[in-house]
Amino acid sequence: MDLNKRLKVINIGLEGFIGAFRDTGTEYLNLNWRPPLVSPDLLKKIDLLRASEKVAKANNEAFKRLNDSEPVLIDVVQAKEAVEGMKDKTIFHAGPPVRWEDMCGPVKGAVMGACIYEGWARDLGEAESLCSSGKISFSPCHHHRAVGPMAGILSPSMYVWAVENRTYGNRAYCSLNEGLGKVLRFGANGADVISRLKWMENVLGPSLKKAVAASENGINISSITAQALQMGDECHNRNVAATGLLLKTLTQLLLKVIDDTELILELVRFIDSNPHFYLNLSMAACKSVTDAVFGLKHSTIVSAMARNGTEIGIRVAGCMDKWFTSPAGIPEGLFFPGFSQEDANPDLGDSTVSEVAGIGGFAMASAPAIVKFVGGSPRDAVECTLQMGQICHGKNTRYQIPQLNFAGTPTGIDITKVIETGITPFINTGIAHRKPGIGQVGAGILRAPMDCFIEALKYIKI
Amino acid sequence: MDLNKRLKVINIGLEGFIGAFRDTGTEYLNLNWRPPLVSPDLLKKIDLLRASEKVAKANNEAFKRLNDSEPVLIDVVQAKEAVEGMKDKTIFHAGPPVRWEDMCGPVKGAVMGACIYEGWARDLGEAESLCSSGKISFSPCHHHRAVGPMAGILSPSMYVWAVENRTYGNRAYCSLNEGLGKVLRFGANGADVISRLKWMENVLGPSLKKAVAASENGINISSITAQALQMGDECHNRNVAATGLLLKTLTQLLLKVIDDTELILELVRFIDSNPHFYLNLSMAACKSVTDAVFGLKHSTIVSAMARNGTEIGIRVAGCMDKWFTSPAGIPEGLFFPGFSQEDANPDLGDSTVSEVAGIGGFAMASAPAIVKFVGGSPRDAVECTLQMGQICHGKNTRYQIPQLNFAGTPTGIDITKVIETGITPFINTGIAHRKPGIGQVGAGILRAPMDCFIEALKYIKI
Repeated sequence: MDLNKRLKVINIGLEGFIGAFRDTGTEYLNLNWRPPLVSPDLLKKIDLLRASEKVAKANNEAFKRLNDSEPVLIDVVQAKEAVEGMKDKTIFHAGPPVRWEDMCGPVKGAVMGACIYEGWARDLGEAESLCSSGKISFSPCHHHRAVGPMAGILSPSMYVWAVENRTYGNRAYCSLNEGLGKVLRFGANGADVISRLKWMENVLGPSLKKAVAASENGINISSITAQALQMGDECHNRNVAATGLLLKTLTQLLLKVIDDTELILELVRFIDSNPHFYLNLSMAACKSVTDAVFGLKHSTIVSAMARNGTEIGIRVAGCMDKWFTSPAGIPEGLFFPGFSQEDANPDLGDSTVSEVAGIGGFAMASAPAIVKFVGGSPRDAVECTLQMGQICHGKNTRYQIPQLNFAGTPTGIDITKVIETGITPFINTGIAHRKPGIGQVGAGILRAPMDCFIEALKYIKI
Repeated sequence: MDLNKRLKVINIGLEGFIGAFRDTGTEYLNLNWRPPLVSPDLLKKIDLLRASEKVAKANNEAFKRLNDSEPVLIDVVQAKEAVEGMKDKTIFHAGPPVRWEDMCGPVKGAVMGACIYEGWARDLGEAESLCSSGKISFSPCHHHRAVGPMAGILSPSMYVWAVENRTYGNRAYCSLNEGLGKVLRFGANGADVISRLKWMENVLGPSLKKAVAASENGINISSITAQALQMGDECHNRNVAATGLLLKTLTQLLLKVIDDTELILELVRFIDSNPHFYLNLSMAACKSVTDAVFGLKHSTIVSAMARNGTEIGIRVAGCMDKWFTSPAGIPEGLFFPGFSQEDANPDLGDSTVSEVAGIGGFAMASAPAIVKFVGGSPRDAVECTLQMGQICHGKNTRYQIPQLNFAGTPTGIDITKVIETGITPFINTGIAHRKPGIGQVGAGILRAPMDCFIEALKYIKI
């Protein structure tokens, strides 16, 4: 210790080394340097993209759309009634496309659970046979204007939040959040999981549908998110304030349309027991926002980032529906009692739609208390937001961070900035057990890998 | 501007000058120096107090009590049924004792309103005659285990929050919050104000009483405050998260005991329309906490700080029930449209019980967004908490500030530290119009004056 205190260190590159100096009180200076990651050809391509007026114009337009989109909750409805392509024996999942045989444990667990929930199989054995038989049609949520957290499983009977982007007219969908621990989205599929899904289909969904129908003009989700960012949430892994704000609004609507205090109490208790209840609604809102830049020609702004537990994939506005994928990383974080890093499944879920829309990991500075859930220090949370500022096109004018003197959240990930700085997006995430049937084991942080950004840069046309 | 940018300034003493440098981007260094405030005799007294084991022990005990008190909401009840000394023709008010003829405009306005509300007078003329006649018995809330925000008027028929300090067994009371703008506590007294008070007596109070009675073991208020401090509140002038947390709990209890969705909706809407609804409950909780150090022999820790709009008074634990008073200052802050600094009444209310208990202005760093309501910058908010750390005995172990790496809020104002450092407590406050009958005109910040601390130091026995 004494030796350390007399040391003065200059750390070049990898930030991972800083922790030890900080913990022991050693003076250090961190030089933000990295070895060049890309070939001179690609650096030249970045220069050409930067010089292009078409690209500049497209990126300004992409930022404008991400920034001025106004997502509004307009309905709660069964997936088969609203989500394009959702038919019998169809299951949507998180992330880029993946075949049944390549799915990770928790996604397989959730898919099998959905087969039982839908009545397509009586038990896990039947469900596995059915899935292997090729009779189930699998497709990414993202291909159907939908998103799903973790395994992201959506099947025909599930209710979804329907969010409309009031500025650009498009709609997006996400399932309702089941709660914490042993839940389908983390790969659990026991009888309690299925019966909760049935209750959500028969009681929660129809009640919320009535409530939202009773709102005068829908429920403005960007307004709730903006308030929550001033109340210590970052609206990906900390949603406690946003859930409270949503619950307050829903409760008043439920009291208007349902004349049964017992039922309302049951609904309020379910929502109140889960501080992440808002997440899925926020994700639908973010999807409606990010879809507004989908296919925007010449733009180097990321329009989607999602993980299926096997691969992570990104889409870039100027590259239409093309996915650029890399193997999914493994999040590091804090684990529930009885679990550890070796139980962690690789990174999973569409919830990174939050970061693509400029919240979540990009708004970490708003949520210093989150470090008790995902690890790190409040200072790391501020540094995270500042660093994301280096890879984004601009600062959001609606989502402000009081701690940073009301600066807007970094919004619009530009692949050229990612590659030039060597800084990839931070992701806040839940952690699923790598085996099917178990559920959530923790929460943590990781960074998206660089490869998929480089592939996108190679692909994009000038 | 150019000139300013080339300047490098050392500011000695008065912080008020810093703003100009900061705003123009001028480099400055602030030297925290003040001219000696007190005579050598008093500095010597501070040394003697510091050397005394009795004083050290008493102050440690005072901090322990402030820190480990656990306030729990146990009832909502009419003042005349619970508050000691509350009889017919009795009115309690905020701050130290004050005679009718010395009361400021908004306190007179509120007193006259209470006379009409209680049916003791038919109009303001009758109310004024009655108050001048000496037939009304006036007394500070603080003398009856009660507190009240702003004018702090409590009359027999009003319902109060009844909070029990579970650790030390004492109870404390505070009226229910009426809402914003034209309300009795800010000196308004029109027909709408009186009819709202009647509704609170006939509908809100009895309903909340039923709700609290249905809770298993009361509602833990320190738990709500601790959560709210992690959600951007400081629980004096920003109570939006705390009000949401309280409402969530109350709604579930109301749904249990009242089988009338229309009535529950009316109650929920009333509470939800006022982001300060939690304030009065928090004040009752803080009073139950600070009363635990009342009269603690030899302690130099402040046990009460309150303003009646004419004077500010403090009580020190080791000085029993003695008030040390100075003329009340005038808060500076942000004003509602149509009002300005010259409309501001001098500082008013018992709400400084928050700061005495270690929240409010002392927890400003928790609530950077508050500066949009009271003025200043988020950096000022952090500096405020750090400065209050210099005059307090310790750091609260329950109330933590994520932004400061989960440091506890400064708790236990020690008059010897106030005098030695020249730093007096920060106060967050609402601002009343100086004339009766008008109401709230803004919100702001000020510091307690030094005189009352010096008087207390002179008085205290070693």
